[in-house]
Amino acid sequence: MSEATDKKSHKEIRKEYTLNKLTGLGQEIIEKIEEKKVPSIRVPSRGTGNIKYDEAKRYYVLGDRYGKRSLGNVKQIRKLGQMVYVGNFCKDLVARDKTATIREMYYVSEGWGISFKTQQESNIVGEDLEVTLGTQREELGLMPEEDGASVYGDITLFDDVEFNASKMGKSGYTISPTIDQVDILDHNVDKVLAVETMGMFHRLVQENAHKRFNCLIVGLKGQAARATRRFIKRMNEELNLPVYICNDGDPWGFHIAQVIISGSAKLAHVNDQLATPNAKFIGVTASDIINYDLPTDKLKDVDVMRLKELSKDPRYKGEFWQTEIKKMLKIGKKAEQQSFSKYGLEYVVDNYFPAKFEEMENQA
Amino acid sequence: MSEATDKKSHKEIRKEYTLNKLTGLGQEIIEKIEEKKVPSIRVPSRGTGNIKYDEAKRYYVLGDRYGKRSLGNVKQIRKLGQMVYVGNFCKDLVARDKTATIREMYYVSEGWGISFKTQQESNIVGEDLEVTLGTQREELGLMPEEDGASVYGDITLFDDVEFNASKMGKSGYTISPTIDQVDILDHNVDKVLAVETMGMFHRLVQENAHKRFNCLIVGLKGQAARATRRFIKRMNEELNLPVYICNDGDPWGFHIAQVIISGSAKLAHVNDQLATPNAKFIGVTASDIINYDLPTDKLKDVDVMRLKELSKDPRYKGEFWQTEIKKMLKIGKKAEQQSFSKYGLEYVVDNYFPAKFEEMENQA
Repeated sequence: MSEATDKKSHKEIRKEYTLNKLTGLGQEIIEKIEEKKVPSIRVPSRGTGNIKYDEAKRYYVLGDRYGKRSLGNVKQIRKLGQMVYVGNFCKDLVARDKTATIREMYYVSEGWGISFKTQQESNIVGEDLEVTLGTQREELGLMPEEDGASVYGDITLFDDVEFNASKMGKSGYTISPTIDQVDILDHNVDKVLAVETMGMFHRLVQENAHKRFNCLIVGLKGQAARATRRFIKRMNEELNLPVYICNDGDPWGFHIAQVIISGSAKLAHVNDQLATPNAKFIGVTASDIINYDLPTDKLKDVDVMRLKELSKDPRYKGEFWQTEIKKMLKIGKKAEQQSFSKYGLEYVVDNYFPAKFEEMENQA
Repeated sequence: MSEATDKKSHKEIRKEYTLNKLTGLGQEIIEKIEEKKVPSIRVPSRGTGNIKYDEAKRYYVLGDRYGKRSLGNVKQIRKLGQMVYVGNFCKDLVARDKTATIREMYYVSEGWGISFKTQQESNIVGEDLEVTLGTQREELGLMPEEDGASVYGDITLFDDVEFNASKMGKSGYTISPTIDQVDILDHNVDKVLAVETMGMFHRLVQENAHKRFNCLIVGLKGQAARATRRFIKRMNEELNLPVYICNDGDPWGFHIAQVIISGSAKLAHVNDQLATPNAKFIGVTASDIINYDLPTDKLKDVDVMRLKELSKDPRYKGEFWQTEIKKMLKIGKKAEQQSFSKYGLEYVVDNYFPAKFEEMENQA
């Protein structure tokens, strides 16, 4: 048999893996019943006491505390029942190559007899299942409402059909919530440049930054969706591409980058799938604000508070972040990434990014 | 010469037209100076007193009141100067096939000597120019930050390269702010189905609604961006495709549809470019809530208030809207479009939309 026939797609491998996990969970319960024991499931704790920053991995992980959901406990019967229903619903989704939004699942559950009182309740059971199986919610077929970032540049993907992200119009490829069903066929770039705003994304596309820097341009649209984080991680780890992030020069821009790099505490149980510890924040830094004499706004009280919080966060303990946070507090100013247009629309691509990339290469 | 060589693209025609308008504005001022008269510009008033609902056109338009900006009036010198600078900036953008975000323009203006004090001030001058020239801001090269809707289905577009919106991944084609630079090459659909949420968009794509109903699927992402409204209008008027809109069954869903259909008062001066009076709202109606026994939420005070406002709005004076608004107030309930999943994920595509399309065809 040829290698081509043998080789399973990324999508097929993940599907098999997820179906096995879901089936395994069901079998565990059935076996307990056959052994005439009371069925129970061990659910890793997601409480703040069980969330730790892992220095070696450079992202948040869950500790080893577990809770037990047992049919022997009257209070837990409903929750365990819901979890089995959600698991069954997900198994059906995965088997049929379908997905549902978490909102749709909430409505579907109306027919289950033990339906959820609120969307919040059904979301939590979805997360319980995610953490119990150690698999992402998206792989279980449960999708958030929103799409991910926009991607522009020379990469060829396969998602039922083959397409190239430099040949789909000015807004490029939109990362769909089902990004793990997408195969990467080919690419001709040597780095990823992710930016916070679609204003900057369109500036980069218009100035041909993808050709000049031989990069993929990613428009994050503010806080990166889970699918965006997963995409960036795949670019970094599967394709070995360095990832550079450029956001607004304020605590919110810093943190949008940091969540891509080190993950969030809330999603500690899936950070191994989402965090990209090798990604680098290249700006806008407090030093940039000074060196480029950028148009600024004064830090508001809430900005100052947030900067002080970040300075104590384990993800910001490196020298680079500590220096930049102190500097920003000292000058009392912040700047948007679009503020480079003070020097003309092209300046950011003609001057700023080339200088930053050179700096990064010298460091490496 | 062959027809192909002669024929200008949509983009080239609009470019010439816009450049002529901008040049004309400058010439008007120069001529006044050469005639030794005081230069002035007539700017149509955008005050509420000059915004009228046009029954024949079925959208909001500006009346014929004008204001005058004259260099003979000390208070108006600064504003007229800014307008000339913005006009010149736009002429440069259009000539070089570039665009800038309104945020970028604000920063660029730092070098003009008569820069803007706030983003708000520069936005207003942009709108002044738009209304004075009778052309859309986007055609002047001034772009909002956000992209438009997602489009999935068999339509072939040309935007530097050729692409088909059914072959670009699960999230389809993203309408870029520069939608008027896009040429429509070919299509194989007979209607447009626009939905409020990306959750419903992905449901439709997954259930192959584009093939089953031979339609373009448009994911509005809430309130439709200007580029989305422009795209929908082009589908309706250039391709003669009927447009159907399905949103959440609440006053906010109603109004997202209504702004696509009849335009907004705020943008009265460009509604001739944005409104699609032939587009139809097909649901979720108050009647649907009853007929399909949908899962509902109680109307909140703010919903009731908004419904009462809408019932007095000239855009809602038709019998259909008056009946549905009254009915919703009477039952005191609202429903989301995803609530059809109570009957299973496929129900909305297997049952609801076919019934609605049949109803629409019987009406036509």
